[in-house]
Amino acid sequence: MSTVRVLTEADLRDAVELGMEELEAIEAVYPLVTAGAGSMPPIMRIDVPENNGEIDIKSAFLPGYSGIAVKVSAGFFDNPARGLPSLGGLMMVFDSETGLPRSALFDNGYLTDLRTALAGAVAARHLARRDSDVVGIVGAGVQARLQLQALTLVREISEARVWARRGDSAMAFADEMSDLVGFGVQATESLPTLVESSDIVVTTTPATEPLLDAAMLHSGLHITAIGSDAEHKRELSADLVMAVDRFVCDSVTQSRRLGELRSALEAGFDESDAVELGAVIAGDAPGRRNDDHVTVCDLTGTGAQDTAIASLAVERAAARGLGTAFETRPM
Amino acid sequence: MSTVRVLTEADLRDAVELGMEELEAIEAVYPLVTAGAGSMPPIMRIDVPENNGEIDIKSAFLPGYSGIAVKVSAGFFDNPARGLPSLGGLMMVFDSETGLPRSALFDNGYLTDLRTALAGAVAARHLARRDSDVVGIVGAGVQARLQLQALTLVREISEARVWARRGDSAMAFADEMSDLVGFGVQATESLPTLVESSDIVVTTTPATEPLLDAAMLHSGLHITAIGSDAEHKRELSADLVMAVDRFVCDSVTQSRRLGELRSALEAGFDESDAVELGAVIAGDAPGRRNDDHVTVCDLTGTGAQDTAIASLAVERAAARGLGTAFETRPM
Repeated sequence: MSTVRVLTEADLRDAVELGMEELEAIEAVYPLVTAGAGSMPPIMRIDVPENNGEIDIKSAFLPGYSGIAVKVSAGFFDNPARGLPSLGGLMMVFDSETGLPRSALFDNGYLTDLRTALAGAVAARHLARRDSDVVGIVGAGVQARLQLQALTLVREISEARVWARRGDSAMAFADEMSDLVGFGVQATESLPTLVESSDIVVTTTPATEPLLDAAMLHSGLHITAIGSDAEHKRELSADLVMAVDRFVCDSVTQSRRLGELRSALEAGFDESDAVELGAVIAGDAPGRRNDDHVTVCDLTGTGAQDTAIASLAVERAAARGLGTAFETRPM
Repeated sequence: MSTVRVLTEADLRDAVELGMEELEAIEAVYPLVTAGAGSMPPIMRIDVPENNGEIDIKSAFLPGYSGIAVKVSAGFFDNPARGLPSLGGLMMVFDSETGLPRSALFDNGYLTDLRTALAGAVAARHLARRDSDVVGIVGAGVQARLQLQALTLVREISEARVWARRGDSAMAFADEMSDLVGFGVQATESLPTLVESSDIVVTTTPATEPLLDAAMLHSGLHITAIGSDAEHKRELSADLVMAVDRFVCDSVTQSRRLGELRSALEAGFDESDAVELGAVIAGDAPGRRNDDHVTVCDLTGTGAQDTAIASLAVERAAARGLGTAFETRPM
């Protein structure tokens, strides 16, 4: 009567991937977020200072979706010394009609990685020049890899560059990704050179001081900033945000608190000049207005995206019989 | 390497029950809450007005506990028309050293029922007269039953009375509980009579208007108010709260927002007269000072209790090999 499906990371990697259907599932939620449809409470955070850790909880109810995802993300930064990854977590999905638990997704952060990468592709789809073919990736971790792959869903990419704080990480990224994406990926030691030669730049770092500033901008550039999702993080200088033709973000509320908007507002940026990606997708606000414009999209990540990717994963898993079903109520 | 244990309601009923060890696990957290030890963020709520539902999330990190529970409670009030219970939910437990998920507890609210009942017993243990032997229960649902049972852990109860809005529910409660507890339980149609003849009164209703007022009080009475856990609920009149000798609550912050303190403060009650149960347990504040005093304890329920009961359940389940273990990381 009350069945819960348990899905492991392996099941979820079978169920959803970096594909167009997944991209469109993510794209569809931005207009809902911007319209204020459904209910998306602020992120809940449990600090565990004793162990240099924190747990963040995101959730959203979206009208028309059969599931409500509750995502728990754990970041415990002493883990690498124990041979464990710093980041982890899981999602649970509840039936939006009855509130009954439907699924536990032990994804170890895979669904977040996926929906974050797809969000970058959605941003580029709506904001980057149509003829963008050179990508610059800042950072060389898991999300950097996924961002580059995801961009190939929406633009004909012919070349990529990568910069990372550690040069050896950038070299490894270039080697691996060249094989994977089927075009040249080069490591560079100069961030200004990377930006100069790219049509689309994606920043994916945990930086706490700006990496990119206004002096690096050039005509036609699009930048997607993925890294900043906490009060102390930032990747773009305030003068860069002030200088671009269009500043877009997934959620003004979140960008103001956790994203690039925070420092820009302090420096005098006018909040009413910030546009949400949902408004651009819905056609309610212009994004890029010509090929010379410089655009930025700041993505902090929303519970709505979690609900979208988790709903898709649960539907696919059920259709394909993935995972293990439990009867949770005693007979 | 990264194993998660899945426990169903049946497993959890095997693991933890209304016992003294469980009671002491719950009791131990109140002083931590009052001391501000650990981290207990405000309750997160996702409203689902389309389906007359809401999801509440509670959590707490407590120093010295190996697990951090994240509890998701669902209340969907059109469910009974579908033959489903209104209330449900689950808990997840994360390792407090590494943040890794350790357990998913598909308890359908059992652990919440249990820790709430035990909290009532803890309140009576510290606030009711030692010779209290007559209990009055207001409400006749699951929590009403558990409260009566839990009180037998801490006081020699010889008699109980029950009042409910629906007389037939009270009659059914009296019949069933007389058999279960081994002493007489009588249904009454008069709430003033119930209070008049009781040493301990426990209110367990979803009332939105006061059921008990100052005129009903008598020397030596202790009242535990369980029902109010939301902005629109209340069981005690403001004049009752003003009239008692000691007003205790599990969390002043929560009682002010969700509990009985809210209306009392509006009516002029001095917040500095509210004492937390943790301070009474720790001996930092007096509870009842003599046998004539009238005491009240308002319990809104805290994430700390969830962490305490879930930690105990997970330890017991692991020791006894209950549930199903999943390897969540791909090999």
